[in-house]
Amino acid sequence: MDRGLSEFDLIDRLRRQASVGGPLLTGLGDDASVTEHAGPTATSVDAVVEGVHFNREWSSPDRIARKAVATALSDLAAMAADPGEVYVTLGLPRDTGTGWLEQLADGFVSAAAEFGAVLAGGDTVASPVLFAAVTVVGRAAEGEVLVLRSGAAAGDLVAVTGSFGGAAAGLLLLEGGWTGADDDRPDAQLRAALVERHVSPRPLLEAGRRLRGSGVTALIDVSDGLAADLGHIAEESGVRLSIDAGLVPVQPGVQDVAGPAGRDALDLALGGGEDYELAMTFPRRRLESVRESLGETECPLTVVGVVEAGSGVEVSGGSAPAGFDHFR
Amino acid sequence: MDRGLSEFDLIDRLRRQASVGGPLLTGLGDDASVTEHAGPTATSVDAVVEGVHFNREWSSPDRIARKAVATALSDLAAMAADPGEVYVTLGLPRDTGTGWLEQLADGFVSAAAEFGAVLAGGDTVASPVLFAAVTVVGRAAEGEVLVLRSGAAAGDLVAVTGSFGGAAAGLLLLEGGWTGADDDRPDAQLRAALVERHVSPRPLLEAGRRLRGSGVTALIDVSDGLAADLGHIAEESGVRLSIDAGLVPVQPGVQDVAGPAGRDALDLALGGGEDYELAMTFPRRRLESVRESLGETECPLTVVGVVEAGSGVEVSGGSAPAGFDHFR
Repeated sequence: MDRGLSEFDLIDRLRRQASVGGPLLTGLGDDASVTEHAGPTATSVDAVVEGVHFNREWSSPDRIARKAVATALSDLAAMAADPGEVYVTLGLPRDTGTGWLEQLADGFVSAAAEFGAVLAGGDTVASPVLFAAVTVVGRAAEGEVLVLRSGAAAGDLVAVTGSFGGAAAGLLLLEGGWTGADDDRPDAQLRAALVERHVSPRPLLEAGRRLRGSGVTALIDVSDGLAADLGHIAEESGVRLSIDAGLVPVQPGVQDVAGPAGRDALDLALGGGEDYELAMTFPRRRLESVRESLGETECPLTVVGVVEAGSGVEVSGGSAPAGFDHFR
Repeated sequence: MDRGLSEFDLIDRLRRQASVGGPLLTGLGDDASVTEHAGPTATSVDAVVEGVHFNREWSSPDRIARKAVATALSDLAAMAADPGEVYVTLGLPRDTGTGWLEQLADGFVSAAAEFGAVLAGGDTVASPVLFAAVTVVGRAAEGEVLVLRSGAAAGDLVAVTGSFGGAAAGLLLLEGGWTGADDDRPDAQLRAALVERHVSPRPLLEAGRRLRGSGVTALIDVSDGLAADLGHIAEESGVRLSIDAGLVPVQPGVQDVAGPAGRDALDLALGGGEDYELAMTFPRRRLESVRESLGETECPLTVVGVVEAGSGVEVSGGSAPAGFDHFR
């Protein structure tokens, strides 16, 4: 039935650039892709919506596609899985320009390739609002085990990669610009890094795969916010995560942006989300092995707390805002 | 980051009803599902959007969910794959009522179960328009082969299951009601069957799996319209499909609805789409084996044409409308 979709043939454009190989036997152009792989397979779904997750004024079509792919693949990093295939369903308003759509389509192909995955399927539907639903599939070798959220045990350490609050501070800059005194304004490079953090996140796939077999008992990517995502580990593992807020690494520049916007830097670091770092638990005796696993990546590891009997997330120290009470 | 999503926790509601087993080792509640299966795996993505593919006035939330799942699974039938997992990403407007959403969520779980699949993952995002992006995964046993669109060869027969035009006629009834003279109005049962065809399609999964290994060389489900979908087989196989329009089975009642709406019944049958029947090709000598494969299902098989050297779809006989020229 003609659903009023524009003439643009996304699948045709995509398949001219896509390739098969490895577990992918048949890609774009059939009713479904065909893959074959004997080991564990991780599958995750996600979506981004215009006006909610991105704005065409803030970002180019290729960066919108790249962010949609990156944030979806971050869920595979959180499983310690190797990236495999990316599938995209686009909801397209009638008035979307063909040139813009071509850049968006090409952006999905190149983003998949950039992160070691391949675009293996897609669909387009007419929609009053532009959206991209992204499905990602990742794998481990036969006999290997993917890392869930549910393995944290009392006595484990809680650690994170990288630093936090940057994506939220970047969003503040995008939404409101710089609102503080001129003298307090962080330098252009620092501001650009914060905006970049929001617009162009990178999935920590290499870090994730290296953590496979390192002794990590639970693993998650920080998309909702550090406190909320640690809460997911606590819930799935049936434990309490006790976090020292003073240990949480805050990205440079976040402090400068938070103040004038009437926000607290630690609030942004713990609750801002979209930093796409990894948070994990592991037995104390595995600290060095975990650190070594990440050694060759550019991901610093910081211990921020411990796992205890109980439930929820307890944030102490620093100036943990009252809003985090509900994670306890 | 808080994206203004309503408080409704879809995943929590879904996981209370979902189960794991078979290839599915970990379902809802982690960053990704985990599956393990050594044979060929088919993956397909699809989406439905409010106001484009469904209207809340026309259908209940459980039927909207059921149709979204059924049409997605139809792509697995078109691969001759056994249904495995269903994943759903919901775009939810802020004002969507919780009761309605609960019915929608439950509808996804029960639709997956009805069709022999299991709901294995999902996500919710805020969106100004309600949409559901559905990913489905199906399989065949190790050593078996899924059926693509690309195997049709000159000399093959073209055949279809069931009858056509019903979903399009049902949509006409939903959109405009009955516009003809009272005396010509098809009886209530016939009208209900047409509307049902549009609102509650069923994926021919059992027929599809039985066709695996029957000698079928190309297989597709009829979602876009019979002529268009046969065109996909022609394109992927590098052949021409020559169809006798007079042989195409038209659903009872379509003729009655088409006339008063100023439409041609054959036009609806060839171009209407959403009937979710299967169309296929196979060597002449396999006709009986294909017919026998379908014997125990409720799917009648009708030969509607032949495969020739060339390209595109040629519709002859009947009163094939000029609009199908572009498929030649």
